[in-house]
Amino acid sequence: MTDRLLIRPATAEDAAAIWSIIAPIIRAGETYTLDRALSEADALAYWLGSDRETFVAEEDGRILGTYYLRANQAGGGAHVANCGYMTDMRATGRGIARRMAEHSLEQARARGFRAMQFNFVVSTNERAIRLWQSLGFDIVGRLPRAFHHPSQGDVDALVMFRML
Amino acid sequence: MTDRLLIRPATAEDAAAIWSIIAPIIRAGETYTLDRALSEADALAYWLGSDRETFVAEEDGRILGTYYLRANQAGGGAHVANCGYMTDMRATGRGIARRMAEHSLEQARARGFRAMQFNFVVSTNERAIRLWQSLGFDIVGRLPRAFHHPSQGDVDALVMFRML
Repeated sequence: MTDRLLIRPATAEDAAAIWSIIAPIIRAGETYTLDRALSEADALAYWLGSDRETFVAEEDGRILGTYYLRANQAGGGAHVANCGYMTDMRATGRGIARRMAEHSLEQARARGFRAMQFNFVVSTNERAIRLWQSLGFDIVGRLPRAFHHPSQGDVDALVMFRML
Repeated sequence: MTDRLLIRPATAEDAAAIWSIIAPIIRAGETYTLDRALSEADALAYWLGSDRETFVAEEDGRILGTYYLRANQAGGGAHVANCGYMTDMRATGRGIARRMAEHSLEQARARGFRAMQFNFVVSTNERAIRLWQSLGFDIVGRLPRAFHHPSQGDVDALVMFRML
């Protein structure tokens, strides 16, 4: 299925489709440190912010995933990239996140980034952790009880990192 | 000397004094991941941003240091505080950073934060690392070569954390 997946830069016309993917994930509040009540306008302003490039993963004209790529820091930290990925909850388990992650690593290299960092991987998000590890990311930090999970209470968050 | 130090919220009238402290530190580019060429307006917009509270440390009417306090993340991460501190380069070694840090821990507790995290402590900034450790912060992460130091090249950065 995913060999029909096209990953391309997002345009303003994709906003509604992006919102349909990110809204349930933001509302669930289990994986991202975003306000669960974030409005559509604020969420899209964040996801499509001018400080980042945003992509969508499309299959037969249907958008199934989206990610952004940005510098994790400015100044002396600007050679390290950061990304956030969200897959349509109805399309998980099909390798779309992996495809987006591989795409993002290529895009980051092409832009001259020399490493990629995920600042806050919720430790209960085991599928994501396994995926990042399979793509060469190491756990370089553990933030004790830094995430309040809506059903599991305070849990650790991980910092993950890989050179490019 | 520092028992005459008053730490109070910054006001708009403090902007010039704050700039005189933060400008040489930003321009040096050795400790913060800020663009070394950041304009005064952009630097002050950052340091006095609406997403944070900013304080100044004043002695006999002269501002010798400044720090900000904010939530490190939104959503499920909003119980962890984050701070940035800068001391007048002409007043280092007098305990002003320690006084600001102690003040910030009290302020963070008073606001209900349950932990404090420093996301990016440059590993060559040994004085700061010793200070944070003496105040109960642990090194919980190491970001390999994540900082390009202007004279020392690529060096590690540390993630430091303590419960409140």
